[in-house]
Amino acid sequence: MTRRVLVTGARGFIGRPAVAALLAAGDEVHAARSPATAPGAEGSQRGVTWHAANLLAAGAAEALVAAARPTHLLHLAWYTQPGVVYGSAENVRWAEATLALLRAFAAGGGQRAVLAGSSAEYDWRHGFCSEGVTPTVPSTLYGVAKETTGRLAVAAAAPLGVEVAWARVFFLHGPGEHPDRLVPAVARALLRGAPAETTLGTQRRDYLHVADVAGALVALLHSDVVGAVNVGSGVPTRVGEIVKRIGALIGRPDLLRPGARPTPPGDPPLVLADVRRLTEEVGWVPRLSLEAGLEDSVAYWRAETH
Amino acid sequence: MTRRVLVTGARGFIGRPAVAALLAAGDEVHAARSPATAPGAEGSQRGVTWHAANLLAAGAAEALVAAARPTHLLHLAWYTQPGVVYGSAENVRWAEATLALLRAFAAGGGQRAVLAGSSAEYDWRHGFCSEGVTPTVPSTLYGVAKETTGRLAVAAAAPLGVEVAWARVFFLHGPGEHPDRLVPAVARALLRGAPAETTLGTQRRDYLHVADVAGALVALLHSDVVGAVNVGSGVPTRVGEIVKRIGALIGRPDLLRPGARPTPPGDPPLVLADVRRLTEEVGWVPRLSLEAGLEDSVAYWRAETH
Repeated sequence: MTRRVLVTGARGFIGRPAVAALLAAGDEVHAARSPATAPGAEGSQRGVTWHAANLLAAGAAEALVAAARPTHLLHLAWYTQPGVVYGSAENVRWAEATLALLRAFAAGGGQRAVLAGSSAEYDWRHGFCSEGVTPTVPSTLYGVAKETTGRLAVAAAAPLGVEVAWARVFFLHGPGEHPDRLVPAVARALLRGAPAETTLGTQRRDYLHVADVAGALVALLHSDVVGAVNVGSGVPTRVGEIVKRIGALIGRPDLLRPGARPTPPGDPPLVLADVRRLTEEVGWVPRLSLEAGLEDSVAYWRAETH
Repeated sequence: MTRRVLVTGARGFIGRPAVAALLAAGDEVHAARSPATAPGAEGSQRGVTWHAANLLAAGAAEALVAAARPTHLLHLAWYTQPGVVYGSAENVRWAEATLALLRAFAAGGGQRAVLAGSSAEYDWRHGFCSEGVTPTVPSTLYGVAKETTGRLAVAAAAPLGVEVAWARVFFLHGPGEHPDRLVPAVARALLRGAPAETTLGTQRRDYLHVADVAGALVALLHSDVVGAVNVGSGVPTRVGEIVKRIGALIGRPDLLRPGARPTPPGDPPLVLADVRRLTEEVGWVPRLSLEAGLEDSVAYWRAETH
């Protein structure tokens, strides 16, 4: 059976490689993009139908589902404005829009949905984040909105007659990332010949290349696993190690300034995903090593910078 | 300053005495009712303006706020169909509608909102339910929808520029209660001269008369207390004690059949509100004793039954 997959946020950071991964898997793809974006080169590819939809508008979800008639849903769209996303009331609108989309998908005969959550749903002070064990006490409105939306969506799945998996995505990097985030900021500085001022980088985080995140989400969509599922590498990488590798890849380790910025107060020493659900139940493992992933990111920023 | 209070669910079980309590306090009342209900006798009272509004319809919240221009919001409306409310997907729609109403209220210049939550948000296995301490792990979709909505509403209050108190209402009885619930069922049976078959009634619950619940909500609205606040008596009453008192009030203790029904498996032995926030911070205490409250309920059902 061919899956008809509706992807929202299809022009976003994760959405672009997700569309590619779905096509590679042979799915029929209905790609929804904000009307503020243009359809990409994927628009000309066989198997992709583009839909412009403002999911915050009344009735938009129903119209999108009526047009796409999806059997599967991969919902990535959310408010993502860097700098203000964590405290913005826009998170409330996206919580509502996500629930409305899930209801419309179910009412339209949809079978299975994967919705994008966040590692920010966990209380990071616990460090090791395990679904169903680690307290989900987010420190930001963004985290609260994701966590409450996910829990309600998962609880409503059976009454709605759909399967719901809630993917808690950890740290990521790759083509299309916002230029102010860690990996782009360091890479762009070094590529310009400017010093890269960072913290000491002793904190450990769980990083994946965005293509692997997209691959994990598609694998989850193709599985029958439901509920909250962490999407991460399971590897606790020192942030300083990432910075050092970027310096080596660009050949400018001399421009690195670890410790030039203070570590923010309360910055958690460890944020690591328990990936047993992803590896053992979904059966997915990353394709790219940290080294290979960073090589790809640096190549992207080299092309963007020149 | 006169408060302009928008009350939703104003023709509901709690809504009717809430309108009365607001009027008694001198507030200007904008009472919203489902279009499926008729405006009550309160409609002719000075100080009440009635609005028919289907809050599940797109744009309904904005239109209601534009018409009422409230400074305060007391949101009681929710899906309440007995028997199916706990597992219904309608809870998702009311979660969305509640958040949309709060946003519209804030955008319209509203200052302070009290939204109705439920004791069902707590993991009742803990028995004693204390805001911020007892785990909020609801066992029903209704409980999940209330808990997630409340947590998101409280977290969004500051970015939205409003005060939000989330009232977790415990057990209640009184005029207008659904006839199949405990107090009406026992009273109506005895008033008909039929036996009242109940469990042994050893479980303890936190009961208030609905007029006291309404009074507590209005006191909370008039306070500056924010976040989750239990609305209960703080008294652990044996359910069997309530049944026995109804038998005495009606003069038919001979018709009581305690133990005729089995206690449901997993029925928690205690569900009791920690009322310190309500009594110490809000400064509210019940007006009616258990005895006086039950006397009023029995009088209501006597009038309804004859």
